[in-house]
Amino acid sequence: MAADKERGVEWRINLGDGTSRVVEAESRFGLQRFLSKVGGFFQRAWRIGVNEPKKSIHCVKVGVALSLVSLFYYMRPLYEGVGGNAMWAVMTVVVVFEYTVGATLSKSVNRATGTLLAGALGVGVHWVASHAGERFEPIILQASVFLLATAATFSRFIPSIKARFDYGAMIFILTFSLISVSGYRVEKLFEMAHHRLSTIAIGTSICIITTIVFCPVWAGTELHNLIINNMGKLSDSLDGCVADYFSSNSETSDKTLQGYKCALNSKAAEESLANFARWEPAHGKFNFGHPWSEYVKVGASLRNCAYCIEALNGSMNSKAKVSDVFKKHFGNICVRLSNKSSAVLKELAVVMSTMKKPTKIDFMVEEMKSAVQELENALKSLSKQSIQTAMAKAGEVVTLVEVVPLVTVSSLLIEIAARTEKLAGTVNGVAEKAEFEAETAEEAKKGQKSKGGNKIGQEDEEDKAMKTLQKV
Amino acid sequence: MAADKERGVEWRINLGDGTSRVVEAESRFGLQRFLSKVGGFFQRAWRIGVNEPKKSIHCVKVGVALSLVSLFYYMRPLYEGVGGNAMWAVMTVVVVFEYTVGATLSKSVNRATGTLLAGALGVGVHWVASHAGERFEPIILQASVFLLATAATFSRFIPSIKARFDYGAMIFILTFSLISVSGYRVEKLFEMAHHRLSTIAIGTSICIITTIVFCPVWAGTELHNLIINNMGKLSDSLDGCVADYFSSNSETSDKTLQGYKCALNSKAAEESLANFARWEPAHGKFNFGHPWSEYVKVGASLRNCAYCIEALNGSMNSKAKVSDVFKKHFGNICVRLSNKSSAVLKELAVVMSTMKKPTKIDFMVEEMKSAVQELENALKSLSKQSIQTAMAKAGEVVTLVEVVPLVTVSSLLIEIAARTEKLAGTVNGVAEKAEFEAETAEEAKKGQKSKGGNKIGQEDEEDKAMKTLQKV
Repeated sequence: MAADKERGVEWRINLGDGTSRVVEAESRFGLQRFLSKVGGFFQRAWRIGVNEPKKSIHCVKVGVALSLVSLFYYMRPLYEGVGGNAMWAVMTVVVVFEYTVGATLSKSVNRATGTLLAGALGVGVHWVASHAGERFEPIILQASVFLLATAATFSRFIPSIKARFDYGAMIFILTFSLISVSGYRVEKLFEMAHHRLSTIAIGTSICIITTIVFCPVWAGTELHNLIINNMGKLSDSLDGCVADYFSSNSETSDKTLQGYKCALNSKAAEESLANFARWEPAHGKFNFGHPWSEYVKVGASLRNCAYCIEALNGSMNSKAKVSDVFKKHFGNICVRLSNKSSAVLKELAVVMSTMKKPTKIDFMVEEMKSAVQELENALKSLSKQSIQTAMAKAGEVVTLVEVVPLVTVSSLLIEIAARTEKLAGTVNGVAEKAEFEAETAEEAKKGQKSKGGNKIGQEDEEDKAMKTLQKV
Repeated sequence: MAADKERGVEWRINLGDGTSRVVEAESRFGLQRFLSKVGGFFQRAWRIGVNEPKKSIHCVKVGVALSLVSLFYYMRPLYEGVGGNAMWAVMTVVVVFEYTVGATLSKSVNRATGTLLAGALGVGVHWVASHAGERFEPIILQASVFLLATAATFSRFIPSIKARFDYGAMIFILTFSLISVSGYRVEKLFEMAHHRLSTIAIGTSICIITTIVFCPVWAGTELHNLIINNMGKLSDSLDGCVADYFSSNSETSDKTLQGYKCALNSKAAEESLANFARWEPAHGKFNFGHPWSEYVKVGASLRNCAYCIEALNGSMNSKAKVSDVFKKHFGNICVRLSNKSSAVLKELAVVMSTMKKPTKIDFMVEEMKSAVQELENALKSLSKQSIQTAMAKAGEVVTLVEVVPLVTVSSLLIEIAARTEKLAGTVNGVAEKAEFEAETAEEAKKGQKSKGGNKIGQEDEEDKAMKTLQKV
């Protein structure tokens, strides 16, 4: 900056009165900071647009739906300005159009039902009030607004209603209040109700058609993919963190290691997607009435595994010294167990994504259990004899405290295996309730082959483990 | 039922044509089941109302606000039916009135700003379009609706905007589309804009006054209490599960044991409350601009502890046999450590709730660390010597595998202590940023006394631990 000034370079702002002022360093940096902030914002926005094209497409779809509804009213000028009915159609499109088909359907049905119910009730109350005499009319109307608004608001706190009919309850309050506040006669109300319902019908149909016809985003498919992705990520981070711990030349990327965190934080997303998915008609591999609530259970089981992986990650990062001898001794067995567990997780992801009846899972769970047994045996053999032998062979001093982190890691791996088994149970539940297809003979054959392949791989691993043990 | 029939008791339904039909067992049970379902629903609803009076009060407040706005229009009949302006005020109240003050304020500001911005832009585009000739007018209007709707929808996907201005973006799209679809001249638009803004002002002020004057529910206070409650629950379940594991006569209720699950699942609630709390003016102990984002960090640290407690709970439920001798040997030390950790958690909750500068925390964290050290020493002393001695004294056969669960529990307790220390750091961050007051001399004195009390209690505990050790 000093150099700038010496060379006579200055930042000047031209003021309105023809003079100009040198921009001081601080405000210049302030401006720079502001510009870089704005730049950063647009960069982030651009990244979202590029990485998630579905979202960009959704935005275009909203634009299309709004253009359609306004075109509809340009071509059929049956409205009288913003106060007229066109407004309700436009409003319906803006409010109802959501990212997923399920959410759009849910809001459409809620809006239509809420309006219909409140309309019927409103006309009824209006009729009663108008027959009750001029003095009681406002009292009856006010009291009914107060009572129904209170009751409908309360219903929004009840979890089962909140999950499915929250928006409907709001529309109910809105419509009922509007009808009560309006000073119309009952005949005029009928006419108005007819108009409103027809505009809502126009708005919702435009939304539903746009959302289903152009690149639909199904809540069910999103939920399905979310669960499968989380399974994959969990499997990868389990593999990665165990490998990193036991082998000095393995370096898993941080992104892979932290993958399990996605499962930790996806509870809310899973539940809302499951709620929306119920409204969706048959699409892709999913029928109407697909057991989406079972997916939520799978998600919960998955999160249970993720908690344990979190603890595993934590205990692996602790600085406690671990004896190299025992690290080698346990390494192979632990890596084997974690491989088996992550293989089960991967296979479960395959079962979910292909929606075929699980055939290999039982076998793989058994393999995992035998790896657990092996680890437990290794822990058992951790008697003073073996420690002494190991010490003598390695020629180094090993105190028992140096085994503590290994014991913890082993226990957590055993716990993860137990939770993975439970997860396999919930996936079985989905397979039963969703009536996953059985594998065809050809596929089964392929499966058999790859199972054979696994077996060979496994023997190789066992050989390696034995050799390492003998070396120790 | 057979008895019913013998005694001639039957369930009959009277049909419209004067005959009656015996209700068959199945449909009778169907009816019963339906009635019991409805009954159960109302029971649950009643329980929500009784257990959370704040929610019931909120419902009454919505009723009051709606009555107020409709009363306003009854008394000043300056509207022409539902199509008129009254509608906008009613709609504003229904849509904007939220459970917490912060949410209501956020929605009010969003609604007003969105309408204002879109109105100004809409009038501008309208003016340009009307000067572009009859042929280009609809094209310009349509294109602007499409482009702005697409852009505004996209902005709702950007996390920083979604958190604060989601509703405003929606209102922006809505208002802009309405103005474009309306066939009004620019002068008429100004008049309309004036009306709409004034009705929105009426609606939002009624909402804000009602929500602040009658039993306000502040998002900030809710967040504050949520964090403090979660700390308390975490502390209780840590204490409870360690006590249950090591002592056969301790029975903690399931509710206490599972308390940590509240912390696991409150991420979404914490984040949305923090977002709303920013909008709130000074209330109670909180100034405007209270560092609510720091509370979210505390929540995250708390959840980190909770993950570990989850794993601890899991490993304590495992069926692995544990040697009684070692259970006794470790029991006291583990219980001591868990007591120290839970005491830190409780004290952190006290710091947060009194908003006084933490004075005891450092001391208590040191105590906790020395308990960790003690446990680590105990683990170190778990050499073959001590095992042999213990075996000889107890006269029972102990294999090392029976120590494995204890080692795991100990490691997890040490990890929990480490995470509790980190939590203390984040609470310190809150204390600094929120400028918690220092303790007065009198309070400090009290604190000193209770610290002394703690010390005595601690010595007692240590005595007990020593005695148990000697017995072993």
